[in-house]
Amino acid sequence: MAHALRLAARGMGATWPNPSVGCVIVKDGAIIGRGWTQPGGRPHAEVRALAQAGRGAAGATAYVTLEPCAHHGHTPPCAEALIAAGVARVVTALTDPDPRVSGRGHAMLRAAGVEVTEGVGTAGAARVTAGFLKRVTRGLPFVTLKLATTLDGRIATASGESRWITGPEARAHGHLLRLTHDAVLVGSGTACADDPDLTIRAFGTARQPLRIVLDSRLRHTPDSRLGRTARDLPVWLLHGPDAPAAARQAWAATGARLLEVTTGPEGHIDPTAALSRLAGEGLTRILCEGGGTLAAALIGAGLVDDLALYQAGCLIGADGTPALARLGLSHLADAPHLRLRETRRLGPDTLSLWSI
Amino acid sequence: MAHALRLAARGMGATWPNPSVGCVIVKDGAIIGRGWTQPGGRPHAEVRALAQAGRGAAGATAYVTLEPCAHHGHTPPCAEALIAAGVARVVTALTDPDPRVSGRGHAMLRAAGVEVTEGVGTAGAARVTAGFLKRVTRGLPFVTLKLATTLDGRIATASGESRWITGPEARAHGHLLRLTHDAVLVGSGTACADDPDLTIRAFGTARQPLRIVLDSRLRHTPDSRLGRTARDLPVWLLHGPDAPAAARQAWAATGARLLEVTTGPEGHIDPTAALSRLAGEGLTRILCEGGGTLAAALIGAGLVDDLALYQAGCLIGADGTPALARLGLSHLADAPHLRLRETRRLGPDTLSLWSI
Repeated sequence: MAHALRLAARGMGATWPNPSVGCVIVKDGAIIGRGWTQPGGRPHAEVRALAQAGRGAAGATAYVTLEPCAHHGHTPPCAEALIAAGVARVVTALTDPDPRVSGRGHAMLRAAGVEVTEGVGTAGAARVTAGFLKRVTRGLPFVTLKLATTLDGRIATASGESRWITGPEARAHGHLLRLTHDAVLVGSGTACADDPDLTIRAFGTARQPLRIVLDSRLRHTPDSRLGRTARDLPVWLLHGPDAPAAARQAWAATGARLLEVTTGPEGHIDPTAALSRLAGEGLTRILCEGGGTLAAALIGAGLVDDLALYQAGCLIGADGTPALARLGLSHLADAPHLRLRETRRLGPDTLSLWSI
Repeated sequence: MAHALRLAARGMGATWPNPSVGCVIVKDGAIIGRGWTQPGGRPHAEVRALAQAGRGAAGATAYVTLEPCAHHGHTPPCAEALIAAGVARVVTALTDPDPRVSGRGHAMLRAAGVEVTEGVGTAGAARVTAGFLKRVTRGLPFVTLKLATTLDGRIATASGESRWITGPEARAHGHLLRLTHDAVLVGSGTACADDPDLTIRAFGTARQPLRIVLDSRLRHTPDSRLGRTARDLPVWLLHGPDAPAAARQAWAATGARLLEVTTGPEGHIDPTAALSRLAGEGLTRILCEGGGTLAAALIGAGLVDDLALYQAGCLIGADGTPALARLGLSHLADAPHLRLRETRRLGPDTLSLWSI
């Protein structure tokens, strides 16, 4: 199962709206088939692993990180495929919360005489599958907040200088984060100030995340890196009802997709409404890269699951731009608390990974 | 020499105005004597190690982290003691920059026919001896800045709540920092807001650091933890020429020591003048525990050598109190850059150690 989880991790960021699943088929102590969900969500892991195992699958054990599907969707159910291949035993980590599956995959296998063991490696699988699970059960995507700050929590000098605070190792690792998420999200302030392209420029990967800007009044110009590349790589703009018609037209002409969402009293996009909408579009894992206003809005609304904190050995002082805008807390006990998963050196910088 | 350096580290914080030195005496491959500078700076490491070695010292090799002293001070010179004991070879890491020694210890040994090897383990010795070296060569103490912050660099909520951001493991480690410094220094803001006692309440140690407040107008009340305990454990107050006479008298009555230093244009104590004064009093290692104004003043004046950054998995937002006040930098290139020495988990928190 540990190996199946590592295979599942390979698909993270590439399989939405589907989960990334890993499958390992073992017979007589040897691995005879391995598979993981392919980009776009199909073929499923089990189908790939069974194809590799061929006739050897008869009498074998299949380890799958998520309950095999039981419904006829774009593909025939994986539970059927496992039965047809003559697999003797199936070990799973999680029950699929999708109402079309939800126990029926396990039941279908058992009804066909396949031995089923559930609940093996559940914690690891819950982590790899977190985006899909949250989308299906709560209608929201899994959100990782990335902050790259000085040791005193600043992301730019008073004059707005921010490139580069962290070193090349941390920036490369940030691209790895983009690779394992379905989409990268920034606020309009960051889009306007940094003119980012939000692509992955490392690891020789062809895969690129969806690029999303939360921009209630469409302040970001279509004559930007995002606007100029929107035909080649998808760009979505989440805007409010008050976004000017001219800006909507100009952005639509770039090839970007416009999604209107509700705004709050101050004209800001309601963060929960925005992320619900993105989950509704099928997104399971979103990486928020700032700025401080969006980060604070997501934290304040309880929408952030993970924090990736890169810190450079540098101090800017209180006149610099804070990584996180006002949260309006009156008591320390109300502050969001995070659990440390890992801390390590990354070239001259540090990386710490936290879960909320 | 590595062992001698570890012995020297035991005396850190306890030997001022003297350096903490370690000495190991080896004969026929066995350690026959070990010593380190005792609290208050005497007896010296060599004397302790020679006493342990006894007659065995004849023909032995002595590893010493700093050049043995050559002058008659409160004690006879260690170089003489090594010669008298018949030590055949002395290996040292550093030349003592004290003008009363500065090569004369080595010369005295060589003149007596002792083989001398210099420059072994210099980098490690420079670190252990950093406070003494900086005091003697630059007239300033070695300064460690301790910051205990949230992940976004805050030390209190807008309402002033700050206890406790970090957990018990980080706080205990903070006491270890106090133990390895001659004195703990805070600004008047922190003294007034937190009413700290700045003692070590861990490890069952009897040794306590000197407690110092930088308080230009003596705002901190003598009816505070520091004031009430000043008879038992030393408290020094660095104040400006404008400190009210009544406050001076009240503080003097507590048993605290008052040191007048020059102030800058805004009435703040000049940080370089303050630290020069403390070095002049013999202090070699000072731990600054904040707050943000003093931290920024020391950083801005280039007076900080090390940063110990404790971070808790907690977010307060931009309305919280920053760990570091304004530095007034206009360019990122002007920001102080720090080199990472170590990063690790400390209970639920992280600790990273940096050198400037």
